[in-house]
Amino acid sequence: MMLKKVLLSGFAGLAVLAVGILIGHFGIEKGSSAPSWMSDLSRDVDEKLIQDGAASTHRELTRVPHMATTAGDEATVQYMLKNWQDTDTGLDASWREDYRVYLSFPNRDKPNNVSVGELCVEKAYQSEQDDPEVVQPYAAYGPAGEVKGRLVYANQGKASDYETLNATLSLTGTIAIVRYGGAGRADKAINAAPFGVIGVLVYTDPYDINDGLMSDENETYPHSWYLPPSGVERGSYKNHFGDPLTPYLAAKNGTYRIPVENITGIPPIPIQPIGFEDAQALICELGGSAAPEDWQGSFPCSYNFGGPGFASSSPFNNSDVTLHLYNRGELRDSANVMGVIWGSVEPDRYVIYGNHRDSWVHGAIDPSSGTAVMLEIARVLGQKVKAGKWRPRRTIIFGSWGAEEFGLIGSAEYAEEYVSKLSQRTVAYINVDISVFANATLRASGSPTVQNVIFKVNIPGSDSVSVYDNWIRYSNRTSAAYGNIPNVGHMTGAGSDYASFVHYLGITSLDISYTYDRSTTRARIYPAYHTAYDTFDYASTYIDPGFTSHQTVARTAGNVLIRLADGLLLPFNCSDYAETLEQFVSTAAEAFEAQLVANGISLEPLKAAVKRFRTAATSLDRTIHNSDLLLLLSGRPLRARMINDQLMLLDRAFLDPLAFPNKYGYRHVIWASRSSNVATFPGVADAVEKARASGRKEDWAQAHKHLSIVTQAISGAAHTLAEAQR
Amino acid sequence: MMLKKVLLSGFAGLAVLAVGILIGHFGIEKGSSAPSWMSDLSRDVDEKLIQDGAASTHRELTRVPHMATTAGDEATVQYMLKNWQDTDTGLDASWREDYRVYLSFPNRDKPNNVSVGELCVEKAYQSEQDDPEVVQPYAAYGPAGEVKGRLVYANQGKASDYETLNATLSLTGTIAIVRYGGAGRADKAINAAPFGVIGVLVYTDPYDINDGLMSDENETYPHSWYLPPSGVERGSYKNHFGDPLTPYLAAKNGTYRIPVENITGIPPIPIQPIGFEDAQALICELGGSAAPEDWQGSFPCSYNFGGPGFASSSPFNNSDVTLHLYNRGELRDSANVMGVIWGSVEPDRYVIYGNHRDSWVHGAIDPSSGTAVMLEIARVLGQKVKAGKWRPRRTIIFGSWGAEEFGLIGSAEYAEEYVSKLSQRTVAYINVDISVFANATLRASGSPTVQNVIFKVNIPGSDSVSVYDNWIRYSNRTSAAYGNIPNVGHMTGAGSDYASFVHYLGITSLDISYTYDRSTTRARIYPAYHTAYDTFDYASTYIDPGFTSHQTVARTAGNVLIRLADGLLLPFNCSDYAETLEQFVSTAAEAFEAQLVANGISLEPLKAAVKRFRTAATSLDRTIHNSDLLLLLSGRPLRARMINDQLMLLDRAFLDPLAFPNKYGYRHVIWASRSSNVATFPGVADAVEKARASGRKEDWAQAHKHLSIVTQAISGAAHTLAEAQR
Repeated sequence: MMLKKVLLSGFAGLAVLAVGILIGHFGIEKGSSAPSWMSDLSRDVDEKLIQDGAASTHRELTRVPHMATTAGDEATVQYMLKNWQDTDTGLDASWREDYRVYLSFPNRDKPNNVSVGELCVEKAYQSEQDDPEVVQPYAAYGPAGEVKGRLVYANQGKASDYETLNATLSLTGTIAIVRYGGAGRADKAINAAPFGVIGVLVYTDPYDINDGLMSDENETYPHSWYLPPSGVERGSYKNHFGDPLTPYLAAKNGTYRIPVENITGIPPIPIQPIGFEDAQALICELGGSAAPEDWQGSFPCSYNFGGPGFASSSPFNNSDVTLHLYNRGELRDSANVMGVIWGSVEPDRYVIYGNHRDSWVHGAIDPSSGTAVMLEIARVLGQKVKAGKWRPRRTIIFGSWGAEEFGLIGSAEYAEEYVSKLSQRTVAYINVDISVFANATLRASGSPTVQNVIFKVNIPGSDSVSVYDNWIRYSNRTSAAYGNIPNVGHMTGAGSDYASFVHYLGITSLDISYTYDRSTTRARIYPAYHTAYDTFDYASTYIDPGFTSHQTVARTAGNVLIRLADGLLLPFNCSDYAETLEQFVSTAAEAFEAQLVANGISLEPLKAAVKRFRTAATSLDRTIHNSDLLLLLSGRPLRARMINDQLMLLDRAFLDPLAFPNKYGYRHVIWASRSSNVATFPGVADAVEKARASGRKEDWAQAHKHLSIVTQAISGAAHTLAEAQR
Repeated sequence: MMLKKVLLSGFAGLAVLAVGILIGHFGIEKGSSAPSWMSDLSRDVDEKLIQDGAASTHRELTRVPHMATTAGDEATVQYMLKNWQDTDTGLDASWREDYRVYLSFPNRDKPNNVSVGELCVEKAYQSEQDDPEVVQPYAAYGPAGEVKGRLVYANQGKASDYETLNATLSLTGTIAIVRYGGAGRADKAINAAPFGVIGVLVYTDPYDINDGLMSDENETYPHSWYLPPSGVERGSYKNHFGDPLTPYLAAKNGTYRIPVENITGIPPIPIQPIGFEDAQALICELGGSAAPEDWQGSFPCSYNFGGPGFASSSPFNNSDVTLHLYNRGELRDSANVMGVIWGSVEPDRYVIYGNHRDSWVHGAIDPSSGTAVMLEIARVLGQKVKAGKWRPRRTIIFGSWGAEEFGLIGSAEYAEEYVSKLSQRTVAYINVDISVFANATLRASGSPTVQNVIFKVNIPGSDSVSVYDNWIRYSNRTSAAYGNIPNVGHMTGAGSDYASFVHYLGITSLDISYTYDRSTTRARIYPAYHTAYDTFDYASTYIDPGFTSHQTVARTAGNVLIRLADGLLLPFNCSDYAETLEQFVSTAAEAFEAQLVANGISLEPLKAAVKRFRTAATSLDRTIHNSDLLLLLSGRPLRARMINDQLMLLDRAFLDPLAFPNKYGYRHVIWASRSSNVATFPGVADAVEKARASGRKEDWAQAHKHLSIVTQAISGAAHTLAEAQR
């Protein structure tokens, strides 16, 4: 197995190099001696050092709530700047960049309220939850409004859920209660409005988050990691990423802003998240017929559709549910904190490492678990730089993004402001947001080209099994080229700040974290997510005692960062992209080909394009792995730059700014979001599904168009990989 | 004067170097000895050699009509391939690339006809005009149809012309006759249809083309260069460039094609171009009141509006004019012929030199004057390469585009197919289409950064005055930085194949030709343009006797090509872009600022962005002109590549694919087409004009949006010029 061999030979020096930093394809061979800076670096970055650093940094970051643009947020800005401007351990430079963005907050003087059963507040189990800066649960970007109507239960608020419900009763004038999951937050309201629903309540069912447990007497936090009955997941109820008033423009003073009423992808009707104790009080009183089996949750009652409204036997009988919501939009200044280590040889090539800084409340896990890791990596590298012992070949940029929780705003504004420079120069973007969801195993997603970079990181995990060996136990797949390997996920969504880098800029990206043992829990996410319980105490007690997984992620991400920033050749493997494209084509052929052909549309041009891509990738790979190349390159730096440019710009070739006119910010024709369940090219899959459903000739024509778009992009990418002569 | 100094010092070696090939900013200093390949090259490229080559090549190219995709076109494909694949004088490689494109032709069996006065055919003065392959005059992409109505005279067919006419009489059911000029070909029909006009005739008024002369007894061709009475300008009546059925996609077999009925930017009503003898017979019989003074032409009669229809005194009184048009669309295979000389040091950097190959008839001037120049340059360079005496630093790509006359189709399909590779690697595009409109003076247009490259070409012109000194006599402007210099035009239109490179790909481009002495003629263009009279005989007798101007253009364009392909540093001057931006800002401020401010919109962010751009450009210029840099660069090739990448990608930073949703293929926010007469940023100018006219708040908002778009693009460009540290 080729991969195994690379791993083995690449990591012969592991015992000496605690961090395991190896440079690209031509790193440390067995028996070679490490450059002095590398040994120096390895001496400092031992496990204990990162561990202590992460824990204490983490404690500092999570002392107070630091929702975007609040005083707590500003304190973290100052903390980042102090660290990155430190004369002994700081970076070459660090500065803040402010954007004036449109956020949405509850009204502190007029709390949102849901009547029929007063709305519970999140119960304070520790003093931190009593902090007056804890923002009350609300649906950011949900409109203010007072609505009143009969309650219905609409499962997860998917369009199909409302359709099912609408087949049973009239939804006009009703308030729907739905559980988290299945559909995006904003979509739960967007899907509801066309049916006449006038308000929505959202809660987290104990089935989905607590493995069914519900009692804070002995089951939930503070007795375990599970969500207490009054806990509420806050969140951005907004589908598009970036500042909502300045699409495609950085939100500076003076920038054109669309009218607030023109914002799309936000709830058209009032919506409010509530705790499951409130939800239980409502759902278990509902009348009407029983909802389907797969709509049922963990409450000890039948989940009924609603009469609409409550059962005649209920004390609430004949009562409406009333929502009094006072959310309001505000223009606020949100800061990114930037830091940089200039490259020694190619300062105009950037490896960007980022995470957001803002939280909903204290944000111990989200995002401070990631920020602590970023600070630790920056500190270790900064120290080497300040001591004059090391400088990477390429420039490393650290980004501490603001207002991510409101829809990836800081990173999106950054991408918009610097679109040309970033497009031209960025080698890769590394995102570590929540660094530790749980402490079982590594999880990674990214472009196929970086899979190999992550695999090469072969440091010991928390229990002395290597990260790689542990990972492959939990999550693996069969690759045509490599056999059984850990499964690296695709970046099709917009769950964190990588979205602007992958989807808008076409920058090769990856996202790393530690995550669950899925055999022990079916929790949608760690239960304190976006609640007032996500505190240092919670993190250190239940998520990562001893911060060992933080340390593993720090070493993994740091190792990847250095490989990308320091290798003479970039460690990207373009043949792995070919494997993914081939898989997409065969999936598309299996699912769609017969029907496409029946509609006069051929898959052959797409197949031919993928073949061309494979041929070009194989050829470039051969060049890169040619044993004489390193020798050759030492005297021909432009030859290395040429190959690196081909690798760096590969993902850029998949951008088509006109491919998805209705999907804001999505330009990458391989990784754009997809509604269809068929795991293939998103434009093709969604267009074919639509054509299948409608049978309309115009819809089949759109499927053909999307096939041509992706065919041209893949052919174009193949042209960029094909070697220039001489 | 800084520029003068550069010119003088740069050209000390001129006596030795007949071609004057100097490399970038660090070419041959006074007293330095030229590299051997340069002397070798200069020995071959003497005036006589180019002269002979151009004339004989020209004769070959123009023997038969070679309209796109005809047998004559295929013969030129074979001729190009034979030349570029020649073992002694050919290029490294040459090949054809075919696209399946939608063209429009008259029906050979059913000629288009205009009745009331039978339509004259172009009179044959020489056997060439009798060639059965001469395509009858028609409006390509004009619909087939038979329409009949009263005639009216509508000046140039501008929207305002139809408005004027409509204020006098009802246009419903009329046929309009209009002269060329003032509005695009297709627009003459597109503007007409909303007023109820059902057909359009187009002619060339002797006032606009012949300096008033009309008689073929003694005044027009074959007695002079002027258009004979039966001559008709053919043309593409289509506003968007590229294959009309495959917007943004290369027109391969299997590519998705839009329905023919969805093509936009083509005439919605029948339209036919006719000769001025036919036009005179119609116009001088029109009734109604006299048209305004500036609608009058050279016919010896009053140009009346039409009654509608003819005067009661006319023999045509009460007659309708009937158009019987039989044009039809066809899918045809059109070829680009590509040729390449691979770069020695940076094969992944491209300088592209192109011209179209297809003509309307024999196309001696359009395009063969340019093709002859391209072949000559390729032959001279190919000979050096084949002899092993020279190879450029960067790759040179020659493109002989097909189907340009139908709307820049070959070059647009090429740009679409290779969009990613070309965007990533192309240093510049040089277009020489009609190389000699007339033999008076050089004419050039291009990005401000290349102005300096053209100025440095200081070869002798036809009468021993240098090209530069001759040029500045005919066309000059005052530059803040340089004082009096030749005027290099802006590339705002889509008049030739540079359009896809500038507007769609954002590649720094230039267009070069020799042109008129405007004090001797007001002809819109050379009079045989797009007629059967554009023959070798016409070109060699009236346009460029002795082909001396062909030779001057060949040496100028060849010199520019080699400077771009061979310089260690690219010879682009980014400060000249700053000068243009400053001029645009001050023009915008003068024309718009008061009214913008009155509508709450500030120009300050734009002004600040331009200042940032100036600062960054000055800094980069200083780096480049630092006397120690050459020394430094010799040991640091990546430093040179970094600077060259900044220069190469500068125009790319001005692309915004979403800025002009209604302008197909236009993405460059500085050079996109503009309707407003205010010579500033096109999006801003057009949006402000619209807002001024309507006074609507939404329209002022759009003006603000365009200001923000251009501000962000300029800021972004400034960021790319600002030096990366270290």
